[in-house]
Amino acid sequence: MPQVSNKGRQMPESPIRKLVPYAEIAKKKGHKVYHLNIGQPDIKTPKVALEAIKNNTIKILEYSHSAGFESYRTKLAVSYKNHGVNVNPEDIIITTGGSEALLFALGSTMDAGDEIIIPEPFYANYNGFSVASGVTVVPVISTIDEGFALPPITDFEKLITSKTKAILICNPGNPTGYLYTQEEIQQLADLVKKHDLFLIADEVYREFTYDGDKHYSVMNVPGIEQNAIMIDSVSKRYSMCGARIGCIVSKNKEVMATAMKFAQARLSPPTFAQIASEAALDTPQSYFDEVISEYRGRRDILISELNKIEGVKVASPKGAFYCIAKLPIDNADKFAQWLLESYDLNGETVMVAPAAGFYSTPNVGLDEIRIAYVLKKEDLVRSVEILADALKQYNSK
Amino acid sequence: MPQVSNKGRQMPESPIRKLVPYAEIAKKKGHKVYHLNIGQPDIKTPKVALEAIKNNTIKILEYSHSAGFESYRTKLAVSYKNHGVNVNPEDIIITTGGSEALLFALGSTMDAGDEIIIPEPFYANYNGFSVASGVTVVPVISTIDEGFALPPITDFEKLITSKTKAILICNPGNPTGYLYTQEEIQQLADLVKKHDLFLIADEVYREFTYDGDKHYSVMNVPGIEQNAIMIDSVSKRYSMCGARIGCIVSKNKEVMATAMKFAQARLSPPTFAQIASEAALDTPQSYFDEVISEYRGRRDILISELNKIEGVKVASPKGAFYCIAKLPIDNADKFAQWLLESYDLNGETVMVAPAAGFYSTPNVGLDEIRIAYVLKKEDLVRSVEILADALKQYNSK
Repeated sequence: MPQVSNKGRQMPESPIRKLVPYAEIAKKKGHKVYHLNIGQPDIKTPKVALEAIKNNTIKILEYSHSAGFESYRTKLAVSYKNHGVNVNPEDIIITTGGSEALLFALGSTMDAGDEIIIPEPFYANYNGFSVASGVTVVPVISTIDEGFALPPITDFEKLITSKTKAILICNPGNPTGYLYTQEEIQQLADLVKKHDLFLIADEVYREFTYDGDKHYSVMNVPGIEQNAIMIDSVSKRYSMCGARIGCIVSKNKEVMATAMKFAQARLSPPTFAQIASEAALDTPQSYFDEVISEYRGRRDILISELNKIEGVKVASPKGAFYCIAKLPIDNADKFAQWLLESYDLNGETVMVAPAAGFYSTPNVGLDEIRIAYVLKKEDLVRSVEILADALKQYNSK
Repeated sequence: MPQVSNKGRQMPESPIRKLVPYAEIAKKKGHKVYHLNIGQPDIKTPKVALEAIKNNTIKILEYSHSAGFESYRTKLAVSYKNHGVNVNPEDIIITTGGSEALLFALGSTMDAGDEIIIPEPFYANYNGFSVASGVTVVPVISTIDEGFALPPITDFEKLITSKTKAILICNPGNPTGYLYTQEEIQQLADLVKKHDLFLIADEVYREFTYDGDKHYSVMNVPGIEQNAIMIDSVSKRYSMCGARIGCIVSKNKEVMATAMKFAQARLSPPTFAQIASEAALDTPQSYFDEVISEYRGRRDILISELNKIEGVKVASPKGAFYCIAKLPIDNADKFAQWLLESYDLNGETVMVAPAAGFYSTPNVGLDEIRIAYVLKKEDLVRSVEILADALKQYNSK
């Protein structure tokens, strides 16, 4: 029988998906499961985007330009400029989700065996994209004690070898919710400039900041125009995860010409979703004000409730809609499984994402979980109640 | 300055895109350009698919299942069974176009440095997907003199090394229009069985056969269930190229579990396009009857007109909507460029795809072009008139 590839064998399983069979068990028992485990927002997609789809007049659903609609790229560049990110339409290639943008970025900058340094914990699928691209992830640990701030720049520098081609950050961070300061971004900028590396920044949560802190894009750092690559997506901004529209943005012409060859090979990004994404650029500011206010409220109540549980430590997120919580348990994988398989509080339980899957270093973050605050406030409060009770019961077993 | 990857440098440019700047020149001169160069059909998308999009009731555009809607996979499996291809929903993963299905197939079966044997001329983007996957293409030449029939199986066997993991075919073929006979498929099946290779078949043109010949799927060959991987797409079937929906299909559980890990890393295929694709399964047979009849008529008139030109040789296609024509010239690249840059017949010219880009072996097919018969009959007739006049003028320069 023919054998699957080693690459395929090395592709990691999603740390969230592993729990799905146990969630099925909970549901079969008739238990209500609060999903704190996935970043699928419950926020409505802007009407202007959905209406554009309903009002489309397509007769032949044709390929679009491989870089995406010119009209969309033009309007998107204007929108970036309005938000202080100075890019032009030709600096943008529309992709099938931020996922494809990351694949294009890795493919255009890294060869098999090359190394990419990523502060951990990091978005678990960076592992999958790296394996698919034949690239080795070199992690730098950021800690809950430091609130997941940027690790000392010397920690990065120690790891740079002749094979290092790029540093990848997620800002604001999934799963940490940390928002890098301008000073931290500048430190990274100095480092990549010094060592001729690319700085790839996944900025898909850019809008989601809560404490008056401003998001500082790698595209705004003077002097690293040739190093900076921005990854973006409409998924979270407009609660349009199913659109599968993102983009790769860079001022480096050679990077963009190379990414364009990857884009041409796969022909084009999805047409309907581009129509929705282009229309979404007309979403009124009031939509974002409401959404941000809602997330801020959720964050505040989630963190305050979590802090009431004895033995729980949580790094208060400054952006995105995730936080990492350290629990008074040994193994969050087992605990998360037990929550679904063996526990309920009056017929209800919670599903969380064990954080170990977000670390590349083995045996780190074993007692941590990631919580996505994509549920209504009352559901978050109830979820933390359940979590508190569950921890008590679990630890008295 | 940081450097792009060798992989990125090796990514081939599309043989069709190279001509785009020259097409711009022709258009600037005010010349009408007949596009025989791309496989973008002018056929209308089925109403049932477009209506489903207009009638969607989505409020939150969520991720779908990474393998695609279960409802779609279920209905798709029924449709395959109705067309004589015996597959189940769990044998199917919905992908972002046939392009992504090919990437998943290569990633799941091949490691960096592995070899894949492909009869040439072949769909040019196979090169791009192979480079992106770190895979080496080993071509087997099929010839216009043999009508692009399957090369002798000994030609394949000679090329098999310890690194060979798969054979990839396109059936019916882009760019040749050749439809493999059941005997040819059986020969390939015997070969992959004997050498424990995968047989990956790109069957996206399955419906488009014109002479009463039946398409024979690799999924129907007894005994190679563990070797066969089918690539499919809605792009051509329903003239929905812009949907970006395809699928990878196999009975090999390990292959599918591996492809699923690639699918999970990129989260999900596009939601709107899945709605359209699922609805498209209800397209009435009359739509296909009309479309096939239209393409058959186009093929017949194109081939008969081409055969009237002295010195032109054409392999009459049995399927898909392409043909390869051998012209009485030295270099089709130069000729195609000249057609756009320097030639017109009463303000009109044609854009063709030089066939060398569909060969992996250097200096083969230099005098051949690919013609896509995706235009109305009268436009095809006029295009061949222009081509005939252009050849005369080009050769008397």
